[in-house]
Amino acid sequence: MTRPSEDDLIARFFAPLATTAGADGLTDDAAVIPEGEGDLVVTKDMAIAGVHFFPDDPPGLIAAKALRVNLSDLAAKGAVPTGFLLGLGLPADWTTDFLAAFADGLATDIRGYGCPLLGGDTVKVPGPLTLSVTAFGRAARTVRRRGARPGDVLCVTGTIGDGALGLIARQAERAPAAAPDWLRLLAPDERSHLVDRYLSPRPRVALADAVGRHASAAMDVSDGLVGDLAKMMAASATGARLDAGAVPLSPAAARALAIDPGLRERILTGGDDYEILLACDAAAADVPLTVIGEVVESTDVVWTAEGRVLSFPSGRFEHF
Amino acid sequence: MTRPSEDDLIARFFAPLATTAGADGLTDDAAVIPEGEGDLVVTKDMAIAGVHFFPDDPPGLIAAKALRVNLSDLAAKGAVPTGFLLGLGLPADWTTDFLAAFADGLATDIRGYGCPLLGGDTVKVPGPLTLSVTAFGRAARTVRRRGARPGDVLCVTGTIGDGALGLIARQAERAPAAAPDWLRLLAPDERSHLVDRYLSPRPRVALADAVGRHASAAMDVSDGLVGDLAKMMAASATGARLDAGAVPLSPAAARALAIDPGLRERILTGGDDYEILLACDAAAADVPLTVIGEVVESTDVVWTAEGRVLSFPSGRFEHF
Repeated sequence: MTRPSEDDLIARFFAPLATTAGADGLTDDAAVIPEGEGDLVVTKDMAIAGVHFFPDDPPGLIAAKALRVNLSDLAAKGAVPTGFLLGLGLPADWTTDFLAAFADGLATDIRGYGCPLLGGDTVKVPGPLTLSVTAFGRAARTVRRRGARPGDVLCVTGTIGDGALGLIARQAERAPAAAPDWLRLLAPDERSHLVDRYLSPRPRVALADAVGRHASAAMDVSDGLVGDLAKMMAASATGARLDAGAVPLSPAAARALAIDPGLRERILTGGDDYEILLACDAAAADVPLTVIGEVVESTDVVWTAEGRVLSFPSGRFEHF
Repeated sequence: MTRPSEDDLIARFFAPLATTAGADGLTDDAAVIPEGEGDLVVTKDMAIAGVHFFPDDPPGLIAAKALRVNLSDLAAKGAVPTGFLLGLGLPADWTTDFLAAFADGLATDIRGYGCPLLGGDTVKVPGPLTLSVTAFGRAARTVRRRGARPGDVLCVTGTIGDGALGLIARQAERAPAAAPDWLRLLAPDERSHLVDRYLSPRPRVALADAVGRHASAAMDVSDGLVGDLAKMMAASATGARLDAGAVPLSPAAARALAIDPGLRERILTGGDDYEILLACDAAAADVPLTVIGEVVESTDVVWTAEGRVLSFPSGRFEHF
C-alpha cells in the first residue's frame, strides 16, 4: 500500500488544525508566535507509547492527552493557552486510520481550548509512537513553584487519585485476570469513571486566571501529590503540615479506598492527576479548591491522617 | 549500578545550561520566553538515532547537530536565536558518560550561538535515542518560503552537497568495505572535510539579519536543494531557471564530482546542507552568496547544466 509522503500527510491531517496566521498553514519550517499581553509561558512534555500511554489507547485520546498534560502545566503557571507545536514520531506500522482519528482528537481540543496548532515536525521512528508537544500560553503573572510563604494554605483543584487508580483499571481492561479485588468490587460506572480520568485529564485552564491572581506558588500534580508537594516546598524553602484525610476524592476513589485502605499511598503518590496544587493566602481560597494543609517555617513536610503522622517511602510514581 | 533520578540528571547535566532568568534553573514545569523586539519565531525539529544520526556518533556532536538544524531554520527566516527547549528520550542503555559528553556539546553551542536552554522534558523510551528541539528566535522581519518574485535571483550560502557526500563517507567509516570508488580516491583531508560537514552543520546565524533585510523568500536547505527549491517556488507560485554548474561546491565535493560525474544528483538532492536558499533582488546579492538561478513567471522549475536541461526523478532525499 502506498502511504502519503510527509508533506501530503501534513497537508491532509495537520494543516486543517493550523488555524492561526502565524502557522502559515504549516507550509514553512517555522512559525511566528502571535503577539499578546503578559508573559509568554512555554512548556514541553513528551509522551511515549508503552511508557506514558498504551499503544492501543484510542488514537484521539492519545493525541488529546499529549496536549492536555501541557495545558495543565500552563494553567498551573497562571497561563491561558495560545497555541502549540507537535513533534510526531511515527512507528513503522502507522496507518492513515490511526492518523485520522489522532487528528480528530486534536481538532476537538484545539476548538475546546482555543489552542491552535502552530507547527511541528513529523519523522519516522524505529521504535514506539513518540509525541513531543510544546505549548504556549499567556500569563498576566507567571506563578512559580517557589513562592510559598509560611501561613499560606495549601489547596488542590478537583480530585486526587483518579488517574492513578484509573491506570490500574485500564491495565485490568487489557489483562482482566490481573484485576485487583477492590477493582472487581467497584460498580461498572465507578470503574469507567476512573479509566476516563486516566485517559482524559481535565486541565484546569478555566482556573488559570484565578491562579495568577491569588497563588503565591503553584504547580500541576502529575507525578503524585506527595512528591510534587515536596518539590514545591523545597523550591520555596518552606515546609508543610498536611491532612491526608482532607485530600478530595471522587466517589469512585473514595469507594475504592473504603474497600482497600492500602490504596491511600497509591492515591497520594500515583500521579496522572493533572490538577493544580497551590499555596495562597487563606482568604483567597474561596474558589472550588480544597484546603489540604498549610505552609510552615521549617522545611519538613508532615502528612497526617486522622491525627497520625504518615510516611511515604517514595513521593512519586517513577515514569522515568 | 544506581543511576541518577530524572531530577538529579536535570540538576547535574542540564541546569548549568539554563543561563537565562526565564528558565528558572529548570526547577519548574514551564519557562518564560524572554521579551524582545520583532517577531518571535519558533521551529521544532526532531532527531532520532538510526534515522537522523548514527547511534555511535560522538554524543557532543549529536547534541550540537540537533540544536544547529533548528538554528538553521531560524536563520533562514531572518531570526537570531534566543533560546531553546530540549525533549530528550533516553533508551535503556544510556550512561552518565554519554550524558556528560552530550551536555558538553550543547554547552559549547549555547555559548557560541548565545542560545540558552530554557526548559524541556526528559523521559525514557523503549526505543532509540530521541531528541526534540524547539528553538526560538527574534526576527525584525520574518522571511517566508512564499514571496519570491519573477526577476529575483536565487542564491545559496556556503557550499552544497558536502553533507550528502559526508553521509556516504560516514557510512564508509562504519563499514569500510562498502566505500564507493570515488571516496577511496579522495585524500584523507577531503574525506574528513565531508564527514565533518555531515556531523557538524554550520547554521548561518550570522546571515540572519541580512536575510531579513534583503530576501523576498528564503528557507534552509535540509532535504536537498532541488526539492527545497521546488517547495519555495510552489509556495511563491513562481518558477525558476537554474544552472547546476553555478551551484557552489567545496574543493572536496568538486573533486568527488570530477571523479564520478554521477554524483551530481546526490549533491543536488541529498540534503543535510543546512545552508540558506533565498530569492532576492539582483542588486542585493553583494554578500557571500552564490547566484544559481532566477525566478520566472511560469511555475516550471528548470535546471540546466552546461546549457542542457536536467531532470531529477526525486527532488529530495526521503528521511521520512
